[in-house]
Amino acid sequence: MSLLEHTISAIKETLNQEAFKAAKDRLLNQAKPAGSLGIMEDISARLAAIKGTIDVRLTNKRIVTCAGDHGVTQEGISLFPAEVTPQMVLNFAGGGASVNVIGKHAGAIVKAADLGVNYDFDPDLPIFHKKVRYGTANFTREPAMTRQEAIRSIEAGIEIVAELMAEAPVDLLGTGDMGIGNTTPSSAIIAAFSGIPVEKLTGRGTGIDDAALENKIRVIQKGLDLHRPDPKDPLDILSKVGGLEIGGLAGLVLGAAAHGIPVICDGLISTAGALIACELAPSARQYLFASHKSVEIGHKYMHDRLGLDPLIDLKFRLGEGTGAAVCMELLDLSTRILADIKTFEEVGVTNV
Amino acid sequence: MSLLEHTISAIKETLNQEAFKAAKDRLLNQAKPAGSLGIMEDISARLAAIKGTIDVRLTNKRIVTCAGDHGVTQEGISLFPAEVTPQMVLNFAGGGASVNVIGKHAGAIVKAADLGVNYDFDPDLPIFHKKVRYGTANFTREPAMTRQEAIRSIEAGIEIVAELMAEAPVDLLGTGDMGIGNTTPSSAIIAAFSGIPVEKLTGRGTGIDDAALENKIRVIQKGLDLHRPDPKDPLDILSKVGGLEIGGLAGLVLGAAAHGIPVICDGLISTAGALIACELAPSARQYLFASHKSVEIGHKYMHDRLGLDPLIDLKFRLGEGTGAAVCMELLDLSTRILADIKTFEEVGVTNV
Repeated sequence: MSLLEHTISAIKETLNQEAFKAAKDRLLNQAKPAGSLGIMEDISARLAAIKGTIDVRLTNKRIVTCAGDHGVTQEGISLFPAEVTPQMVLNFAGGGASVNVIGKHAGAIVKAADLGVNYDFDPDLPIFHKKVRYGTANFTREPAMTRQEAIRSIEAGIEIVAELMAEAPVDLLGTGDMGIGNTTPSSAIIAAFSGIPVEKLTGRGTGIDDAALENKIRVIQKGLDLHRPDPKDPLDILSKVGGLEIGGLAGLVLGAAAHGIPVICDGLISTAGALIACELAPSARQYLFASHKSVEIGHKYMHDRLGLDPLIDLKFRLGEGTGAAVCMELLDLSTRILADIKTFEEVGVTNV
Repeated sequence: MSLLEHTISAIKETLNQEAFKAAKDRLLNQAKPAGSLGIMEDISARLAAIKGTIDVRLTNKRIVTCAGDHGVTQEGISLFPAEVTPQMVLNFAGGGASVNVIGKHAGAIVKAADLGVNYDFDPDLPIFHKKVRYGTANFTREPAMTRQEAIRSIEAGIEIVAELMAEAPVDLLGTGDMGIGNTTPSSAIIAAFSGIPVEKLTGRGTGIDDAALENKIRVIQKGLDLHRPDPKDPLDILSKVGGLEIGGLAGLVLGAAAHGIPVICDGLISTAGALIACELAPSARQYLFASHKSVEIGHKYMHDRLGLDPLIDLKFRLGEGTGAAVCMELLDLSTRILADIKTFEEVGVTNV
């Protein structure tokens, strides 16, 4: 059995129903109108079911930002040049990027991972060194990667979770991405799964203009027409029009689910990875939380397909794990809401 | 000059434009796509303009939960009995309520204030003792309070800010409410200002059924028809169909604005108070942040009138300051985004 198959088979079919029921009971008896803390109550109950207790502690928070390059940038689909991908990986390692700042505020340790950056990093750079290849191929001409490379990228994500767990038990994992051009494969992935027209799923990425957006839509359509990825085969989609970091992001979700770790995905690219994971292993969805609603228009369709509602909409369109980092504080807070708000009985308030 | 007049005249007409421009410049030069942290960037720039620096520190956070009772509860407009108001004030003082738990997570000190609870609290109870009267009158029969009492309730909120500042400089103030029945005067206030039909502005509060909702709408309409409050006179509206805690909440906003403190308002009731404040002193709006979008349908119309977008929508309908407390973490985070994310130049990333 491969690492991927083994991991999928290790994901539980159902969460702890006893803890879930205990959580729901406590929430109903807390001295506040029933259900009045809305989505936070639902989250707290799901976390209780994942962890098997109503006093969940999300102490060790980790964010992994998966990076990869994209051959399709040759088609002029991004505002920024590809050289920015390795530059930003160095920025993550140096602690000065957006995800570092937001992760620090959330009490999370951020670490980047090279899944397929077109650059040789110093082996001593404190990142996960998991390069599968030096960026994908240009999918308007050939498949982005082979099926074996797609599996390898997912397994790299699974390995990262195992390596994190070997250091210290992870209580909450956030996923993030870096890869110039990677909204293009992400939109291609949701188009391939859903059959929704490409123009409804394609946004401006880092900020391209109308003409560049039209080109981007054409590029994605060309890739889909050339390769006709099988909507029932997530590995076929990932290999033909995906990205190496997107495979890594799928692996993070599968690895987290197999270890029983709640995992929160970021924007369009992280959610594309989460989608690949949940199409491979639907039970993984139980462990998955959608963080924010991106400005990227394809994101909504991914959430619809996953059946998840994002927690916040702050008009982010950055990636890196920034939205996941913001929402880590909300997941953390939800555990305190469940455990620490007193019941009517405990505080002597009249119930109705 | 009265305390109210003095406070209004102390609010600056404009914020620090130099700090605002410096913030905007830095945000544009940070190593990320321009504007990609959306609403958080806007908030951080406004906070910089309020505080006059791009390295804002929101260290001392305070939440004041203003409580009052409502004679209109005689009309059966609430699910919970009025005795719950003092019980919850005791719960706040004991630290076991929702706002205590969420406030603690946000690093804020929470303190309740008695503006008009129909109960005699022990003078040693650690709350702000600012009782104006033992609850409002039933506004379907007589004005909720006199004009002098309305002014007194606002001035009590102003005094609370001064007392907080005398203890330690407050960097961020959150407002919250407690008062069984107080969605009724809050909906009446926005109806009186806006002229929007009462049925469009009236929600289910703590969870009343269809028949009780119809009754609540009739009760509000009766109060408005009887007193015909002047939409151009916020004190007339507050005194005829308002609440004592709502006056206190208006005073908190005015006091904060006069001291140059950013202030974040909570749900329907806190925002009704903020609306009274900003109709009295439009410049106060510069210091005001809307936290969450409540399930209560009248809330949206208040935000529209204030010209503010709430930051989050977590389907809260609790009050107490819970939504304000959640958003304090976001305001805090925004200051770090502005000050700590490095620029393209600082980290050697290619700009476009």
